[in-house]
Amino acid sequence: MTLNIQTVPEIENIPESKRVPILRACEGKEDLANLAAGNPDMEMPDFITERLKEHIKTGLMPYTHYYGLPKLRTALSQNLEDEWRIKANPETELLITIGVSEALYLIMRTILHPGDEILLPSPHYGSYYQNCIACGAKPVLVPLDEQNNFDPDFDLTEKAITPKTKALLFCNPNNPLGTVWSKEILEKLAEFALRHDLIILMDEIYREFTFYDEPFSIGSIPEMRDRTFTLGGFSKSYMMMGLRTGFVTGPAAVMEAVKKLHYCITFCCPISGQIGALAALECPTEEMARIKADFKNRIEVLYQAVISISGVTCAQPKGAFYIFPNFSAFGKSAMDLAIDMIEKANVIALPGTEFGELGESHLRLSVCARPDRIKLGISRLQEYATKYLKN
Amino acid sequence: MTLNIQTVPEIENIPESKRVPILRACEGKEDLANLAAGNPDMEMPDFITERLKEHIKTGLMPYTHYYGLPKLRTALSQNLEDEWRIKANPETELLITIGVSEALYLIMRTILHPGDEILLPSPHYGSYYQNCIACGAKPVLVPLDEQNNFDPDFDLTEKAITPKTKALLFCNPNNPLGTVWSKEILEKLAEFALRHDLIILMDEIYREFTFYDEPFSIGSIPEMRDRTFTLGGFSKSYMMMGLRTGFVTGPAAVMEAVKKLHYCITFCCPISGQIGALAALECPTEEMARIKADFKNRIEVLYQAVISISGVTCAQPKGAFYIFPNFSAFGKSAMDLAIDMIEKANVIALPGTEFGELGESHLRLSVCARPDRIKLGISRLQEYATKYLKN
Repeated sequence: MTLNIQTVPEIENIPESKRVPILRACEGKEDLANLAAGNPDMEMPDFITERLKEHIKTGLMPYTHYYGLPKLRTALSQNLEDEWRIKANPETELLITIGVSEALYLIMRTILHPGDEILLPSPHYGSYYQNCIACGAKPVLVPLDEQNNFDPDFDLTEKAITPKTKALLFCNPNNPLGTVWSKEILEKLAEFALRHDLIILMDEIYREFTFYDEPFSIGSIPEMRDRTFTLGGFSKSYMMMGLRTGFVTGPAAVMEAVKKLHYCITFCCPISGQIGALAALECPTEEMARIKADFKNRIEVLYQAVISISGVTCAQPKGAFYIFPNFSAFGKSAMDLAIDMIEKANVIALPGTEFGELGESHLRLSVCARPDRIKLGISRLQEYATKYLKN
Repeated sequence: MTLNIQTVPEIENIPESKRVPILRACEGKEDLANLAAGNPDMEMPDFITERLKEHIKTGLMPYTHYYGLPKLRTALSQNLEDEWRIKANPETELLITIGVSEALYLIMRTILHPGDEILLPSPHYGSYYQNCIACGAKPVLVPLDEQNNFDPDFDLTEKAITPKTKALLFCNPNNPLGTVWSKEILEKLAEFALRHDLIILMDEIYREFTFYDEPFSIGSIPEMRDRTFTLGGFSKSYMMMGLRTGFVTGPAAVMEAVKKLHYCITFCCPISGQIGALAALECPTEEMARIKADFKNRIEVLYQAVISISGVTCAQPKGAFYIFPNFSAFGKSAMDLAIDMIEKANVIALPGTEFGELGESHLRLSVCARPDRIKLGISRLQEYATKYLKN
């Protein structure tokens, strides 16, 4: 008799990513122009590649310290103090993780009791919602104000609060929206969090891609130190996605529990990614300036092309790799539109619903392909719109 | 007012590893001979290093497929069929993970309901216990028969079964014991699991280091396919520890849920580790034969030296990197003995209690240091025994 293994409901109930039907629609198709990926088709800075080459040559690939190479934690702590204005003791308040992904899961699993509610200003990054479910918590979507560049509406946010509300989780600069919450908004959010006794989880993986302002971290506000977890990494800034190296800093007492869970789940992070991260911290700043200017330009070109399509509206992009245009004038669901574009125009976008139900009728478009492929994608999108999008 | 963040009890209750006081005792000491590490101080085979160099040169470090590079899963599936005699569909039954660590957590978190009991033949690898706690399950230690080379006592195992017993988890070849359960024992275990409707989690990370027999996988028994999760990796066999690449195969229905959790926690595995793993699968077999013969010899030398100490007994080593000698004749606790050896003899061993209370009065000794350091460690241990161990 076959054993029927009962899986636990939290894991069984994790919703499947909307990326899956998109991948399926792409199967067997050739010459697709990819405006969907968050995975830049771009080389790491040579400075980092050279360091990695030096390391590989030794042939030595030991486990590292469970919580991250001590010299990486020391250098990162200094960088957080100098650039982010965040104090993070490298021994007690800092953990190197498998990207922001692991960091987010560790924190959520450590602080979310069953039934706790977590506010997700939305549209939101898809796995935030999935992580809530995986931890037995309840994600509460708080609509962002699209008319106002997806800034938060604090009255609406206040209405979403219940005695079960534990935390608020946001990505700034934002994936999928391409917007940035300003210093003023983050200061209001800090007051809001203090007033309502909320924990803040701030995913700053795209921090280096803040195009028009100085980046500002809510974790740098002294009153917020006891309640803010700041998550970051090297994947996006230095084209080190596949080296899987991120970090989290937060209050020491919680970090102690978080580290124990990290030891259970991943034991230690890959040594190559940590050596790459240390190189990234020492990389000449011109390298990062060059990459940032490139992405700012790419995004501006994409944005101008998309808003020139009659009937399409779009918040002005201010950071990260994305724009999140609104196609509601054409009466198609986001998924239908994305699938139709693959089939009729050979161009891939992600349906806005990958980022929650409030993303309906939107697409997430990215600039991670090679420049000639982005150009091709844009012209295909424009041609598709002319032919098929009637309002 | 400072926010006091309540962590969830499962995570708070994860016991701290006994490695921590050992690390603390080593602080500030120089010239220690390390007989504690499971982290071989040895280069990867050149074949793998060369492949990694080729990859680094491109400077491209993209995210990979969430579940592992398709060509790695295909090659691994073939290897599992040819060598392990395990059928694992690369699409539905195989997942690439951050070492065995992540694989183990994913499976346990997916199948263990709160209060479920899991049998740990013990002494056991420390994080097995920690993972049970992290998943809200109850670890039930089943003493192994030390008089009989740590083989299982099925009568005793049967007595540990309750209506809550869900699974049995074992490492074969074994860390920390250095022993191997034979094909005959694994066939008996299969009958036992079928009779009691148990799931088997088999950690085979040391499979290539089976010194005297052909390795045998319980997952290769057809009747066990619906209830066995086989965990393995490339870390130990190919000196790729820090590349963090392992895998798990098991029944498709559970693997589907496991993959969703993997997507939440780690998104995808490091590309360098996966490229290394693919190289390992294609690596000339003489390389592995050389590494295995080297470890077999190292272990034999260590074993002979340790059993020559009057009063010490030790199960005969048959696999992995370890021996687990019994020092109970001397009346010291395992932790006291390990600390005392660091202080008086500059040699590091792990206290047996890192592997559960049934490891009391034992030490785990390893052969992962450079040969001259192992030699030094052995002579210091012998000198220490002559001077301080009286029974």
